[in-house]
Amino acid sequence: MAIFASCQEQKKTTASPEERVVSDPLPSWNDGINKDAILTFVKAVTDSTSTDFVSVEDRIAVFDNDGTLWSEQPAYFQLFFAIDRIKAMASDHPEWKKQQPYQAILEGDMKALMASGEKGLLELVLATHTGMTTDEFETIVSDWVATAKHPRFDKPYKELVFQPMLELLAYLRANDFKTFIVSGGGIEFMRPWAEVVYGIPKDQIVGSTIKTKFEIKEGKAQIIRLPELDFIDDKAGKPVAINRFIGRKPIFAAGNSDGDLQMLQWTDSRGGKTMKLYIHHTDSVREWAYDRSSHIGQFDKGLDEALDKGWTIASMKEDWKVIYPFEMK
Amino acid sequence: MAIFASCQEQKKTTASPEERVVSDPLPSWNDGINKDAILTFVKAVTDSTSTDFVSVEDRIAVFDNDGTLWSEQPAYFQLFFAIDRIKAMASDHPEWKKQQPYQAILEGDMKALMASGEKGLLELVLATHTGMTTDEFETIVSDWVATAKHPRFDKPYKELVFQPMLELLAYLRANDFKTFIVSGGGIEFMRPWAEVVYGIPKDQIVGSTIKTKFEIKEGKAQIIRLPELDFIDDKAGKPVAINRFIGRKPIFAAGNSDGDLQMLQWTDSRGGKTMKLYIHHTDSVREWAYDRSSHIGQFDKGLDEALDKGWTIASMKEDWKVIYPFEMK
Repeated sequence: MAIFASCQEQKKTTASPEERVVSDPLPSWNDGINKDAILTFVKAVTDSTSTDFVSVEDRIAVFDNDGTLWSEQPAYFQLFFAIDRIKAMASDHPEWKKQQPYQAILEGDMKALMASGEKGLLELVLATHTGMTTDEFETIVSDWVATAKHPRFDKPYKELVFQPMLELLAYLRANDFKTFIVSGGGIEFMRPWAEVVYGIPKDQIVGSTIKTKFEIKEGKAQIIRLPELDFIDDKAGKPVAINRFIGRKPIFAAGNSDGDLQMLQWTDSRGGKTMKLYIHHTDSVREWAYDRSSHIGQFDKGLDEALDKGWTIASMKEDWKVIYPFEMK
Repeated sequence: MAIFASCQEQKKTTASPEERVVSDPLPSWNDGINKDAILTFVKAVTDSTSTDFVSVEDRIAVFDNDGTLWSEQPAYFQLFFAIDRIKAMASDHPEWKKQQPYQAILEGDMKALMASGEKGLLELVLATHTGMTTDEFETIVSDWVATAKHPRFDKPYKELVFQPMLELLAYLRANDFKTFIVSGGGIEFMRPWAEVVYGIPKDQIVGSTIKTKFEIKEGKAQIIRLPELDFIDDKAGKPVAINRFIGRKPIFAAGNSDGDLQMLQWTDSRGGKTMKLYIHHTDSVREWAYDRSSHIGQFDKGLDEALDKGWTIASMKEDWKVIYPFEMK
């Protein structure tokens, strides 16, 4: 039941005897200053006798998704989805054989694909994510998540989530935090699977949006996904989305890249006890190692500010016993 | 604690002995087909042995605000807020004395104000709702709600909420529904007071939005409210907002005007057991009586479709023992 509304998660996480006997709420985190920082923060804001106590309605925790809750290499998983869609749709579009960026995909030429730049990638997204009803898109995403596999691990993408972060989400909810995703990814790309995988209700999953239109067709109400961007939930867009969708400043924020910096700054600006957590991709063996010069999930300005302000920087190599849940089987 | 996150409301509503001994969850509703329809619907979708059973995560209930949860006459309360703001700001704007629609307000000429039309009203909203930080606007709204009084009842606007609807909200939450507001009103106009008044968390309050911008000013992160409309959460915009903010089709929707029709159509389109509730303003003595020809909250197309499809139409005069909570004191 932990996949349902936060109340359900909390009933579950507070009621389950298994969890009550667990002395360590973060078993996949190595002991150290970063694990201590998390435990100390949660104890402080939930201790009604503490000057740092935060009432339940203000216990808002926001998480980036790509690179923070699941991997984002060698490319954002949503791009793999778009690529698979192009291949699946190609038979209806013979013109794509000679038209970039489609040709690059059909010929497996990732270099040419990347050369098409943001404009090319946006065209891919609009070609594969719009022109259908919201119901149809949900089915398309659900089918892909159930069948597509990551090229390096040969496992479903939804299995490439970070076990230590799943434990952190559950730990926060067990302490009456309301957990949200605030991601640059598409809001309707995440909702069909993220609710089940992370235990975060759909209405607490915030992301980028395209314009949509409500209409009655043959007596049936439907919402059509239009080929036009509505909002990019990245960088300065993240605090704007947090204000619009949540209406409160978070007391906890976790990210992994410069795209999350403004979200962490917004959290920091709340005052009082807050936690800003950066996940640093430092494990080239079990996951990937990248930061300042990466073309995906660049972590440069954010790393400087985190170091300067003493925010928590968790190293995947040093702080995490395991990366993915399947390592524990 | 019932004002906090839905989990808190539910713990409260399910745990409170007072409520468990209450045999009638809707004491302010007169017995009759409409009250029966609500009770029968909730019993059916929460009975795990029923073919109409709906799992907890899908128990989404959406409510319009103006005219559905509180009154909207003789004008939307948010317009009274804007008018009061113009008066408060007038000393800094001597030019307003000779400039419509401001002059009309300063001279108390409602007729001239209404003559300024949608364009004039939009100008008022932008002049009074933008140009400050989100923190500043929250303070302005909170101060107004705490002090301003309705011209007819000489009571704070927040006391002009409908007691039968407060009971309906609590009843649904006690049955593990997640309750949302989906209103044409400003999302940041509602959040400062609606959470406390209705027991609906800020992140479950959806409304119209203006564009905002995140910035760091003198080292301090802030969000500025820009003088540009972002999204009007009315008519066909309501299903669009429900899809964007909630990500599920509701199984329960309540409204009072044609502006809510598409929201009820969207709820109806879900299939399975759903409830579409229209509040009909039929009480000219205790509240107001208006429908097909009203300039506010027009209820014409919606009334036809509700009658045609057999949706529930609650009459304030016939179905409600009391309108406002203060009648019970």
